[in-house]
Amino acid sequence: MRIAIDAMGGDHAPQANVEGAIAAAREWTDTTVILVGDKDRLEPLISKDRPGNVEIRHASEVIEADDEPVKAVRRKKDASMVVAGRMVKDGEADAMISAGNTGALMTMGLLVVGRLKGIERPALAPMLPTMDGEGLLALDLGANMDATPEQLVQYAVMGSIYRSKVHGVDKPRVGLLNVGTEEMKGNELTKAAFPLLATAPIHFVGNVESRDVLRRPCDVLVCDGFSGNIMLKSMEGTASVLMSELKKQFMRSFITKLAALVVKNGMLQLRKKMDYAEHGAAPLLGINGLVLKSHGSSGGHAIKNAVRQARIAVAGGLLQSISTGIGGMTENSNGSEM
Amino acid sequence: MRIAIDAMGGDHAPQANVEGAIAAAREWTDTTVILVGDKDRLEPLISKDRPGNVEIRHASEVIEADDEPVKAVRRKKDASMVVAGRMVKDGEADAMISAGNTGALMTMGLLVVGRLKGIERPALAPMLPTMDGEGLLALDLGANMDATPEQLVQYAVMGSIYRSKVHGVDKPRVGLLNVGTEEMKGNELTKAAFPLLATAPIHFVGNVESRDVLRRPCDVLVCDGFSGNIMLKSMEGTASVLMSELKKQFMRSFITKLAALVVKNGMLQLRKKMDYAEHGAAPLLGINGLVLKSHGSSGGHAIKNAVRQARIAVAGGLLQSISTGIGGMTENSNGSEM
Repeated sequence: MRIAIDAMGGDHAPQANVEGAIAAAREWTDTTVILVGDKDRLEPLISKDRPGNVEIRHASEVIEADDEPVKAVRRKKDASMVVAGRMVKDGEADAMISAGNTGALMTMGLLVVGRLKGIERPALAPMLPTMDGEGLLALDLGANMDATPEQLVQYAVMGSIYRSKVHGVDKPRVGLLNVGTEEMKGNELTKAAFPLLATAPIHFVGNVESRDVLRRPCDVLVCDGFSGNIMLKSMEGTASVLMSELKKQFMRSFITKLAALVVKNGMLQLRKKMDYAEHGAAPLLGINGLVLKSHGSSGGHAIKNAVRQARIAVAGGLLQSISTGIGGMTENSNGSEM
Repeated sequence: MRIAIDAMGGDHAPQANVEGAIAAAREWTDTTVILVGDKDRLEPLISKDRPGNVEIRHASEVIEADDEPVKAVRRKKDASMVVAGRMVKDGEADAMISAGNTGALMTMGLLVVGRLKGIERPALAPMLPTMDGEGLLALDLGANMDATPEQLVQYAVMGSIYRSKVHGVDKPRVGLLNVGTEEMKGNELTKAAFPLLATAPIHFVGNVESRDVLRRPCDVLVCDGFSGNIMLKSMEGTASVLMSELKKQFMRSFITKLAALVVKNGMLQLRKKMDYAEHGAAPLLGINGLVLKSHGSSGGHAIKNAVRQARIAVAGGLLQSISTGIGGMTENSNGSEM
């Protein structure tokens, strides 16, 4: 198996990416890990004791975090992210991982790797943290701002297959992000999507309110990218503000600082639970190749974990399953229209 | 001034509503407070020492929390909420307050009180808590699930006038809820609304991310009801889950319970800051009368505070200002189309 890593993407690139690649290559000796990026910068980082299954593929350019996605992908044809994507497209790699510019990665997926047949819009599907530590897969969280009811159904099918194939979840429960749990709640989009989801080949459990997401009411949460992103950032913002207010409370006096020491471990665990960088890389679902987005702040450990996910997805034939699942739906709906 | 209170609406009705009404009548002797509801239940609650400026208006029916809004308003013509609304419509009261069924109150506003001329959709505008204790006015948070760009501009104008008239905020800063702060971020709705907001007669400060809302990036936050509701419930859910996880940490042992005692006051303050019931009643803006929605869990204190808000709004000529503000916009846009 061959897995390409965008060596230059992410806050701690290339150091963390190289570390993760080497750790992965050591653990999975049947896998060749290809670091894509500036050879002159990468060579010195791995020269010491390079495992035989780590390769370097030179790429002269880098897409920066603040680059405008479409422009960057079109103009920087020799960027590490674009070259890694082309390797997937051309069958030189079975999967690729990047911790770089999210918008650029999604654009690259569309323009370089291309859509799976029958898919209207690819979706980015990260795991959201839940209090039981299991997490849930949410899509779309920002690849497409607007969605049609039919696209939400495609998200649901792709997300279900991913959770089942890669996470081993049996009959993943699919929920629709909404403002209430009753069937007729919501805006035009969710009202139109509800009956389609109810008859789709998934285990649909109905509407889910954003206030319940941390309690894991479902395994796959479906939403348009705009609402999903609003939800995600509301949760992150609230958690971050509360944690920092709490810190203030603990720093007020000698005695509160003592109290802080007592609950410090518990608080760290809680913070870790809420940190969605802990929950692995997010697949870009619906494109004709396996592309995983690691969190921008990924360290070596996170990159290694992304390789683990990629291996499972490749070995499980994720792409073929999604293609078959979406194909089946299209045939069914064609059938019923005749 | 005459202010009607739906005596039968809310979790603690009629007791809390009567208490609030009496307290308000005592403080503002120039104001007549009219308790609308079941006379036989209300009389015993106020007979002891009833201020001269508290009246009872009998209404034989009650809209319950789980009643279907449209049906309830149409069928229960003698419900306390509907009678109070009719008093506003007929000029028998200058404002009304209800802590009852939110959906029913919004329906009542539309069907009984009616829209202000030029307004496409009335909006419910609660204050969201912010960490500095000031709060910000957000609209719409659920009266209308879908919105057009033009409706968002109307929300912005109404919200600005409310904050300026009722809260005394000079040139309230208006933000557009979005997934990023850059101008071209967002879905079709926010992209179309941005240039309209930029040229509207308000102090528009651009896009606001949901993760920043608790830090008060603006005084008026504009959004469609669906996204706004997703944001609100994400924030509530995260705060509630974090607080209960924290409690678990503190209850683990004798020593952590001691630590909890030390920071207890600070934690209570924090919880209070996050509680949006603390931030007063939400006006239903865009209808042809003054209707305020108190939180369902309102006690006497909250009801009295709602009377305070209503008095300021009536004295400041809120309705006339909104009518003029919206009228001016309509004329301007007619002008530019000619």
